[in-house]
Amino acid sequence: MIIVLKPEATQEIAQELLARIEEKGLKPLYMPGSERVVLGALGDERVLSQLGLDGHPMVESLKPILSPYKLVSREMHPHDTAVAFGRANIGANAFAVIAGPCAVETEDRLRRSAIAVRAAGAVGIRAGAYKPRTSPYSFQGHGPDGLATLRKIGDELGLPVVTEVMDTADVEAVAEEADMLQIGARNMQNFSLLKAVGKVKKPVLLKRGLAAKVEDLLLAAEYLLAAGNEQVILCERGIRTFETATRNTLDLNAVAYMKQKTHLPVLVDPSHGTGVRDLVAPMSLAAAACGADGLIVEVHESPADAWSDGAQSLYPHQFEALMSALEPVLAAVGRQLA
Amino acid sequence: MIIVLKPEATQEIAQELLARIEEKGLKPLYMPGSERVVLGALGDERVLSQLGLDGHPMVESLKPILSPYKLVSREMHPHDTAVAFGRANIGANAFAVIAGPCAVETEDRLRRSAIAVRAAGAVGIRAGAYKPRTSPYSFQGHGPDGLATLRKIGDELGLPVVTEVMDTADVEAVAEEADMLQIGARNMQNFSLLKAVGKVKKPVLLKRGLAAKVEDLLLAAEYLLAAGNEQVILCERGIRTFETATRNTLDLNAVAYMKQKTHLPVLVDPSHGTGVRDLVAPMSLAAAACGADGLIVEVHESPADAWSDGAQSLYPHQFEALMSALEPVLAAVGRQLA
Amino acid sequence: MIIVLKPEATQEIAQELLARIEEKGLKPLYMPGSERVVLGALGDERVLSQLGLDGHPMVESLKPILSPYKLVSREMHPHDTAVAFGRANIGANAFAVIAGPCAVETEDRLRRSAIAVRAAGAVGIRAGAYKPRTSPYSFQGHGPDGLATLRKIGDELGLPVVTEVMDTADVEAVAEEADMLQIGARNMQNFSLLKAVGKVKKPVLLKRGLAAKVEDLLLAAEYLLAAGNEQVILCERGIRTFETATRNTLDLNAVAYMKQKTHLPVLVDPSHGTGVRDLVAPMSLAAAACGADGLIVEVHESPADAWSDGAQSLYPHQFEALMSALEPVLAAVGRQLA
Amino acid sequence: MIIVLKPEATQEIAQELLARIEEKGLKPLYMPGSERVVLGALGDERVLSQLGLDGHPMVESLKPILSPYKLVSREMHPHDTAVAFGRANIGANAFAVIAGPCAVETEDRLRRSAIAVRAAGAVGIRAGAYKPRTSPYSFQGHGPDGLATLRKIGDELGLPVVTEVMDTADVEAVAEEADMLQIGARNMQNFSLLKAVGKVKKPVLLKRGLAAKVEDLLLAAEYLLAAGNEQVILCERGIRTFETATRNTLDLNAVAYMKQKTHLPVLVDPSHGTGVRDLVAPMSLAAAACGADGLIVEVHESPADAWSDGAQSLYPHQFEALMSALEPVLAAVGRQLA
Repeated sequence: MIIVLKPEATQEIAQELLARIEEKGLKPLYMPGSERVVLGALGDERVLSQLGLDGHPMVESLKPILSPYKLVSREMHPHDTAVAFGRANIGANAFAVIAGPCAVETEDRLRRSAIAVRAAGAVGIRAGAYKPRTSPYSFQGHGPDGLATLRKIGDELGLPVVTEVMDTADVEAVAEEADMLQIGARNMQNFSLLKAVGKVKKPVLLKRGLAAKVEDLLLAAEYLLAAGNEQVILCERGIRTFETATRNTLDLNAVAYMKQKTHLPVLVDPSHGTGVRDLVAPMSLAAAACGADGLIVEVHESPADAWSDGAQSLYPHQFEALMSALEPVLAAVGRQLA
Repeated sequence: MIIVLKPEATQEIAQELLARIEEKGLKPLYMPGSERVVLGALGDERVLSQLGLDGHPMVESLKPILSPYKLVSREMHPHDTAVAFGRANIGANAFAVIAGPCAVETEDRLRRSAIAVRAAGAVGIRAGAYKPRTSPYSFQGHGPDGLATLRKIGDELGLPVVTEVMDTADVEAVAEEADMLQIGARNMQNFSLLKAVGKVKKPVLLKRGLAAKVEDLLLAAEYLLAAGNEQVILCERGIRTFETATRNTLDLNAVAYMKQKTHLPVLVDPSHGTGVRDLVAPMSLAAAACGADGLIVEVHESPADAWSDGAQSLYPHQFEALMSALEPVLAAVGRQLA
Repeated sequence: MIIVLKPEATQEIAQELLARIEEKGLKPLYMPGSERVVLGALGDERVLSQLGLDGHPMVESLKPILSPYKLVSREMHPHDTAVAFGRANIGANAFAVIAGPCAVETEDRLRRSAIAVRAAGAVGIRAGAYKPRTSPYSFQGHGPDGLATLRKIGDELGLPVVTEVMDTADVEAVAEEADMLQIGARNMQNFSLLKAVGKVKKPVLLKRGLAAKVEDLLLAAEYLLAAGNEQVILCERGIRTFETATRNTLDLNAVAYMKQKTHLPVLVDPSHGTGVRDLVAPMSLAAAACGADGLIVEVHESPADAWSDGAQSLYPHQFEALMSALEPVLAAVGRQLA
Repeated sequence: MIIVLKPEATQEIAQELLARIEEKGLKPLYMPGSERVVLGALGDERVLSQLGLDGHPMVESLKPILSPYKLVSREMHPHDTAVAFGRANIGANAFAVIAGPCAVETEDRLRRSAIAVRAAGAVGIRAGAYKPRTSPYSFQGHGPDGLATLRKIGDELGLPVVTEVMDTADVEAVAEEADMLQIGARNMQNFSLLKAVGKVKKPVLLKRGLAAKVEDLLLAAEYLLAAGNEQVILCERGIRTFETATRNTLDLNAVAYMKQKTHLPVLVDPSHGTGVRDLVAPMSLAAAACGADGLIVEVHESPADAWSDGAQSLYPHQFEALMSALEPVLAAVGRQLA
């Protein structure tokens, strides 16, 4: 940690702060400059956060040197983590595509959508039973019944299922039925939920929040690992920017960046990342090209009748075409479909 | 709702959509233009969301006409709602200042901070027992013990207390001890929590999310009102933008805008809104001048030793000076301190 | 255009506005609803902007139906435009990679960089003679001398050159020496410059501004076409968001979106789009996969000694590896290197 | 400057970099830590930018310690700069309000608007002759004729005028007629224009760009001062964020922050800052309360007929009411109207 003092900070202040740093077992450094005194504290910066130096009236700014996350960092754990989900080992070399409708609507509709995505090569099914909706007047999901329907269809078709959990009270029930728990963008910093899901022995798909920096996402994952769950998959799904032509701005920079910084697998959600059906395929290919470990895509048997997210859901034939288009792109970067 | 069709949409498509609109009890409108056919649907737009028109392949875009929120809207409820909190009737003419440390640290420290803010004229105390922290290695709050300490100090000093609830599982416990429940920025779209807090008979302080549009905030409040809780106070606390000189960008436009659109009271949090101690006072005065109904400010008896948010916490003497400075500004806009 | 009136707007107001719409030769529509009166005006919406309806006190909001750009739109001009630049026909099927250092530093250094990028397969050279720099204390470019050096190296190696023009006063001089004029991100809405460059008979590379919506970029291009220059290439180079891990957020959504909306070619600048050398290659592959027509990449013979943008400049061997990696990805999407 | 090396950087690399730092006349520092080697370079950081350290493959990140601007900084120049504009000394204690229409439309209209703003107490008139418009089909301003009309009305009414200059080619002409030159938001980083206007002996109003950090704005002002023009006024006019309820997000944090960091005066433009007529008054009061030195407000004699910006232009009676409302707020913070 680098500690820049205000111009008016005295020698005594500097000495006092250096003493506090040393007390915590860190190595203190004193760097008097022409316009500012700069202090350093070398060692585990997590300890420093307890010093509350940022509240000191003579401290102008703090500049951390080390990354604040440890367990998710590739520095500590250089080898890729792989997370098993059905036949796919997500994070290993093969590229995993999970697909399905936004929500569990009716059993028949889900079955038709699921049959279609299985036929096209999806490794698992996505569909929401608990739906986070901006408006209280929108369809909120079928809850436990939706969960049961999803489990039934997954068993019928022999595909694993992933579904969102929104409440600590539901973690056990969702973990019972689902093969992977999703923490949605709006709950990425629901720390109670992170702690609860961290105790579960099931894989977790952690979606990036709308205003979350990559570092925030990695720290949210750090909560899961710190609580004992190492089967964590990160998911880039677009961030909120000033652009209104698309629903969100898919940040593929973040995918390439995270693949360098963390050993965890990274999926991309091109459906929420664009919000526009016609942009899902090109962004899926881009995700494959820049190093993502797979996709989670919204596909509906009849998007024009979908109860939610119809505008960004692919028709089954479009999904089939996407899967075909992915193959040569994956081959070009030395990978293949799971 | 205005429905713009794609250039290639046929007459039959238009007729089919008009029929679906009519079936839902809305008044359909047909507007053929030179380059596009435009349809209209007049009536309750909440019904339309069930039509899934946005998923239709021949629909280019949807343009809602009415605001999606109803219960929080001033159109339906023109008179200001006031929420009682100790001696203050927040949302009525007097301006309410709530103050205290970021977190409950120790009983003694909280007592000293609380005595200071009471002396300066705060109407109530804020302090967190459950703390949402970006890093799992930061202080997470004392939980139930912190809650008990806060209640004790509130009773001792005769001041009401507000504290954050982060988990549906804790709603009952927090509602037991606190006079007002806070839903934090990171949980603004934790819809399970909104529904649970909506059933409580205690006032709620709902903070704007880092990436929440004003409309999202009003819809989050709509969840609370729809669940039966009408004692809702909105809080602007800064949004996340590209600017890095301040921790967040305090959006006072949103305060003036919301005062026109909703009957609910609006507070401002200049501490999180700036993240910089020296900016808290000027932004507090600005909030008072543009129509906010009060403030929630971080004040710590010794910010240089605070366990969290020290950089944005006022010293007691600074808070006292702020309260003095507020008086003439409030008088200038026809208000006074509660 | 859809015109939503305020709830308190009278019948007379509506009639007055409809009359104004009709006077302009547009088809007026009257849609009385339960809570609002809505008016429509069908026809050329550019005419409507002269009506100043948005300033009317009884107008709540305006919702345009048609896109505000015409000449750049694929609706009016469905076939792809191709722009000749050396051996490349940018916007036709082959994928064009332009490369070179941020700035013209010395003749020898530029020659070494240019030889390297030519050897690896670049179709042209980029290098700045006029440099837009955030700080007045940073290297500002060599101006006319830099221009002459660039021309000399281009001629020596038989490669066309692209360079930025920042001032209407320099347009003629730059057009004299360069084979393509670049309008930089910070000048994307320098409308005087757009008008001046619109009169030049040379291709233009128009980079997206840091806060420009796609629609703003297309309207900036519309300025160029309206002034008579149809050889316009758009360039996505990252937008400014809250993310700080990367210099900008490369918005590949915008690339796929623009390829659908406009007939103009779209390049991607992965160097500014990421600001991080190690992210340039994966984002280049992503750009190729999602439909971009080429790249403009910073390559320096010795980035550790570059006078600007060293952190995002590739080493020659990295550029060579990138060109090799692009080939199979382009083949996978049915294209090849120009 | 703090230079963090990558984990794999050798001792030799560190020594080489320290030597380069010393060569430049800066004091080098060596700080070996457990996970990273950190170097320091104390002295004028502008010199360091010539070292290109950010391009070095073994440098992980650079952390500047000193602010990159000097001439505009309050550290170098603690006393407030005041800029004369008619009877107002902007930046001294009195609060200056400049008002007028968006554009010079006709002489009669401008006269009526100007008479109204003078009657209400404005110290000067604003109106554009050269208009930066997003669309080439929007009214572009009357150019030189508009300039002459503006000068005529200013002389008639005895009020100074401010107007935008968009092109280096027009700087002389605008400086001839106007009492203050405005550099608009879209040209804030038009460095050619900054250099040209820096040579003029007239005051400059420099508006913040839509995506400009405060530091970028201060560096743009540094260009003006470095070129010799010290009569610079900064203007906060809203930044572009994800919020769509208002045209821009007025960043009053930036006003309070800049008043601490720079000696230059700071005005606020609540018209562009909100884009909504009904929000102009509350945001004006907020600006006055948080320390701004004045306002620049759009007022039109008949906004419903304005050729541009009607939606955010005040009616004359609204402006009069605003001026009355400002008085007690200014008194509350120890100031008064100029």
